[in-house]
Amino acid sequence: MALLPLIEYDAASVEVRAIYDEIMAARKTDWINNFWKVLANDPRELRRVWDDVRAVMAPGALDPLTKELIYIAVSATNGCEYCTYSHTAGARAKGMTDAMLSEVMAVTAVANQTNRLSNGYRVDVDETFRPRW
Amino acid sequence: MALLPLIEYDAASVEVRAIYDEIMAARKTDWINNFWKVLANDPRELRRVWDDVRAVMAPGALDPLTKELIYIAVSATNGCEYCTYSHTAGARAKGMTDAMLSEVMAVTAVANQTNRLSNGYRVDVDETFRPRW
Amino acid sequence: MALLPLIEYDAASVEVRAIYDEIMAARKTDWINNFWKVLANDPRELRRVWDDVRAVMAPGALDPLTKELIYIAVSATNGCEYCTYSHTAGARAKGMTDAMLSEVMAVTAVANQTNRLSNGYRVDVDETFRPRW
Amino acid sequence: MALLPLIEYDAASVEVRAIYDEIMAARKTDWINNFWKVLANDPRELRRVWDDVRAVMAPGALDPLTKELIYIAVSATNGCEYCTYSHTAGARAKGMTDAMLSEVMAVTAVANQTNRLSNGYRVDVDETFRPRW
Amino acid sequence: MALLPLIEYDAASVEVRAIYDEIMAARKTDWINNFWKVLANDPRELRRVWDDVRAVMAPGALDPLTKELIYIAVSATNGCEYCTYSHTAGARAKGMTDAMLSEVMAVTAVANQTNRLSNGYRVDVDETFRPRW
Amino acid sequence: MALLPLIEYDAASVEVRAIYDEIMAARKTDWINNFWKVLANDPRELRRVWDDVRAVMAPGALDPLTKELIYIAVSATNGCEYCTYSHTAGARAKGMTDAMLSEVMAVTAVANQTNRLSNGYRVDVDETFRPRW
Repeated sequence: MALLPLIEYDAASVEVRAIYDEIMAARKTDWINNFWKVLANDPRELRRVWDDVRAVMAPGALDPLTKELIYIAVSATNGCEYCTYSHTAGARAKGMTDAMLSEVMAVTAVANQTNRLSNGYRVDVDETFRPRW
Repeated sequence: MALLPLIEYDAASVEVRAIYDEIMAARKTDWINNFWKVLANDPRELRRVWDDVRAVMAPGALDPLTKELIYIAVSATNGCEYCTYSHTAGARAKGMTDAMLSEVMAVTAVANQTNRLSNGYRVDVDETFRPRW
Repeated sequence: MALLPLIEYDAASVEVRAIYDEIMAARKTDWINNFWKVLANDPRELRRVWDDVRAVMAPGALDPLTKELIYIAVSATNGCEYCTYSHTAGARAKGMTDAMLSEVMAVTAVANQTNRLSNGYRVDVDETFRPRW
Repeated sequence: MALLPLIEYDAASVEVRAIYDEIMAARKTDWINNFWKVLANDPRELRRVWDDVRAVMAPGALDPLTKELIYIAVSATNGCEYCTYSHTAGARAKGMTDAMLSEVMAVTAVANQTNRLSNGYRVDVDETFRPRW
Repeated sequence: MALLPLIEYDAASVEVRAIYDEIMAARKTDWINNFWKVLANDPRELRRVWDDVRAVMAPGALDPLTKELIYIAVSATNGCEYCTYSHTAGARAKGMTDAMLSEVMAVTAVANQTNRLSNGYRVDVDETFRPRW
Repeated sequence: MALLPLIEYDAASVEVRAIYDEIMAARKTDWINNFWKVLANDPRELRRVWDDVRAVMAPGALDPLTKELIYIAVSATNGCEYCTYSHTAGARAKGMTDAMLSEVMAVTAVANQTNRLSNGYRVDVDETFRPRW
């Protein structure tokens, strides 16, 4: 149970409703998920976080599906239950197949493994890998 | 300085050399990076980890560049210096541009942010996000 | 369900009861929360951890409420469900408002974000930031 | 060495210079630290992250020094070298004493300890700690 | 609820059944736990991860019980509920007592504490601790 | 460079010297490592953390070497450079061989891998794994 109450659309202020409308329009849905309903207890935070998510998930040098896969990898690494379920749903809506999910998890798992081997053994960075600019 | 000595090609056993040859062939390089030279102190571990990396990074439902981007996102989340430098180099060799790097970092940053908001507020998972199988 | 049974007051040894009494006196409550009941399976650990918590949460250069807010920030970062609920309750008892909770979460979220940007881009520490002593 | 070049003020675009000017004005300094110089490779990210930091670190229900202490606690938990140095400097500029730093670290350390005891033993949340709304 | 369906023995392919048989033989059990049933959606991943676990958990310079204790310490540190329950069960089957569990958790807790003090204060590594090889 | 100055023995207060003497006696050394010299800026914290470490690392149901191995596993998981070097040195002094170090790292790596697969796929805990008490 969330630490703060869920702000439902009908009970929301005009300011919050306007952000909810933006979210639903951007996602082509007619409902708001719990994450935003909790953030809505502080409308400025709702605005700030929604602007962040919208900005970084928009198509750019990477397509939206690739961005969702990266989101899943980070969420699995951090053990975030909510984010894992919500971004898996989001990725499926953008075309993620079971085979793609399996490969995201496999890369995430092996990266977590080699991160600890590199950090644990204190492996020195090869000069060749240093950026040149 | 690594916890164990670097096993150089010339000083390596036949078994280790064979794995080094595989790594160089797969990566089309004529040198071995420090990560493998440290693991080579235990040839079975060298074999096991190389098999893992080769298997999950091979092209499949996701292309190798996408996999490198996921690797960078996980390594940045875990604060692995070695992995960040080595996989950024690997991703650039596969075509990652500065714009793509910036977007990987942006998605990683925002995912780390919303992971903590979801976990911190203990947001309940929406029923709609639950998998149906 | 916890890995070890909950040691209730009535079933506790004299040694454990004495620590339970200290905890209830310090917190002005007449009950013991599950965290301590699990630790009580090893009375020396119960003593050690309670002494730690009591020592660092006592008023000092920082007031107890500020310390609870820091505790919440760390618990949200680590994804600790138990600690998030218990220290949010503790902070509310010390005067934390919804607005304060929202700001703790916002700072925690943004710190997690910039931690990954700094670590991910491997930003060099500015000389000016180095301590001078 | 950072993954991307540092964008110095003199070499920056008009857009980036305007943000640098905002940062220096807000912080009453005449220099820009490396974190922003790296982000400036992507001016939209520079804008986004600066807006985030400015928004959540502004005085509100919590004072700016308390927010810096929370930032230090999160950065120490995540092992972010850059953020630890930069926010310790920021907190000292706002009045943090050695005694306050010691208490932030002590609370952070004990919170990390009890987070693992709670998560490790899988302690059930007491009903009393559940939010009531 | 897992993101992918559980592949039960009776519904599994010949390839998956063969791996299930290996797992049950190695563990002297007549059932398969959910972790493997989820991985079985991608038989190559099932094979890869099982080979990893079998290889590193086999007796060697360390005995299997010590390895289970290390597994518990890592899982508690990462907040992995599934792994904590499954490896605690595995360790008990290999002889772990309540006193041993308590000491694993105590060391894990204190290590998490001093990790943050060392990282937070940015303590310089003593020359004496550097490896000599 | 540490955030606070190193308190050397000759410049230490009587209170701090007494604790330094305890540490050297317990470890049969004639020097103090930097970790304690930094903590000594707050003598009560020095006392508290030393008491914690001494208590949990003492022989009990687990021998001191096994405890050092667990400490290394946690430190590698958290990416703590100082702790990795210091506890590897401590473990070697207690008899850790290269083969044992390799196995600690291998188990740590695979545990970090399966922790993410379990958390990422949200695998349900098997009823059989639930504790019975």
